[in-house]
Amino acid sequence: MVYLREDERIDRLMSVNLDIIQSHTVFSFSIDAILLANFAQIPSHDRASIVDLCSGNGAVALMLSGKTKSSIKGIEIQERLADMATRSIQLNNLADQIDMIEADIAETTQWIKKDSVDILTCNPPYFPIHSLSKKNPNPYLAIARHEIHADLDLVMKVSSDLLKTNGKAYIVHRPDRMLEILDTMKKYRLIPKKIQFVYPKKGKEANILLIEAIKDGSMAGFKSLPPIIIYDENDEYVPEVRKMIYG
Amino acid sequence: MVYLREDERIDRLMSVNLDIIQSHTVFSFSIDAILLANFAQIPSHDRASIVDLCSGNGAVALMLSGKTKSSIKGIEIQERLADMATRSIQLNNLADQIDMIEADIAETTQWIKKDSVDILTCNPPYFPIHSLSKKNPNPYLAIARHEIHADLDLVMKVSSDLLKTNGKAYIVHRPDRMLEILDTMKKYRLIPKKIQFVYPKKGKEANILLIEAIKDGSMAGFKSLPPIIIYDENDEYVPEVRKMIYG
Repeated sequence: MVYLREDERIDRLMSVNLDIIQSHTVFSFSIDAILLANFAQIPSHDRASIVDLCSGNGAVALMLSGKTKSSIKGIEIQERLADMATRSIQLNNLADQIDMIEADIAETTQWIKKDSVDILTCNPPYFPIHSLSKKNPNPYLAIARHEIHADLDLVMKVSSDLLKTNGKAYIVHRPDRMLEILDTMKKYRLIPKKIQFVYPKKGKEANILLIEAIKDGSMAGFKSLPPIIIYDENDEYVPEVRKMIYG
Repeated sequence: MVYLREDERIDRLMSVNLDIIQSHTVFSFSIDAILLANFAQIPSHDRASIVDLCSGNGAVALMLSGKTKSSIKGIEIQERLADMATRSIQLNNLADQIDMIEADIAETTQWIKKDSVDILTCNPPYFPIHSLSKKNPNPYLAIARHEIHADLDLVMKVSSDLLKTNGKAYIVHRPDRMLEILDTMKKYRLIPKKIQFVYPKKGKEANILLIEAIKDGSMAGFKSLPPIIIYDENDEYVPEVRKMIYG
């Protein structure tokens, strides 16, 4: 049996028929995690080494487990969130496939060998520390959303350290930081290959950015994938997004 | 009266009610020019200094003239194309507003003062020289499409040289060269502020990229504008594109 803390609930990850422990006050995953898990191209076989950085409550790792037989390692710095993820893994009997490590990503190479990873996913904190508002003192959300323990430079450095040559990194972030993301990827030999913008509605600016980069990849063949527009004119999910969420 | 050469015809730029001399064998403008002229934000008053580089037969300069009372200078290296543009300017009685200069853009500062331009547009050659096919020996089209006389580095250098601080560059190009475009802009102090991808149809990868950059602009506030999808399910222009073309 898996216990639940007072403020926790169990939600369903419909697309993969898995349960996930969430908490309104501590952490619950967003559409960004669903988009990232869907964007990442994962081989279905059992021989790939897959890592999810900044795992939160494990939503991305759980969703990836539905796409592959390979084992997945998640890294999460917050003890409480890593614990939620570990209990969700137990709840779904996935302890043989998913391993959640409570660690600072700066120390990841203590657990995972350098140059050993085939596929890496990351939904990092989006906001610089200077934008940290004193109005929201919830430390769980502050660490998940702001670059308190992991900024872009560290995320890209660690991603590059972990990946094999030609290993792939999948990152979800905010479009307003695209230039900085591309520069930082370049600094750490991660060559962007595919980009996909996500727009909340028709006629609106993009609010989510998905990037696939290849470690030591060639500069040729960069692609901008078809846009994803989340809601239709009636404020309902478009079929493509409904499929990502509900399977 | 304006004369036409043997292979020339007069087309209508519907959105601005102007005539333009075109030639199937030498040069005719594409949807890219229409998208660029539409994307560029031009003040309507008469005090801005506006330059169009790589003007071809003057389509962008002619379309911009419908948005502003300011004077516009076009630069085109090919004598035949610059001559077509000049005759189109005469045909529309726009010689007081538009001046077409036959010149290599590398020598633009002989005609236009450095650091003097408010708005610059450019629809440069898209393809590296190494992709130049021997199967298409038409020299007019080869120069317009391939980086024979103007490569990305030169386009961005000249754009930066001409623009005032906070002057704006509007560039149309191919998405597969986005990383190189952004790097080259950065090299010449052009800070990208807005990006817009154009997709031929729903579900297809982008095939046209529009970028607005500001000389010495701040890094903050980068935006990805709503996608433009040219054709609907019936292979007809979407209303937004129809309006750009037909007004």
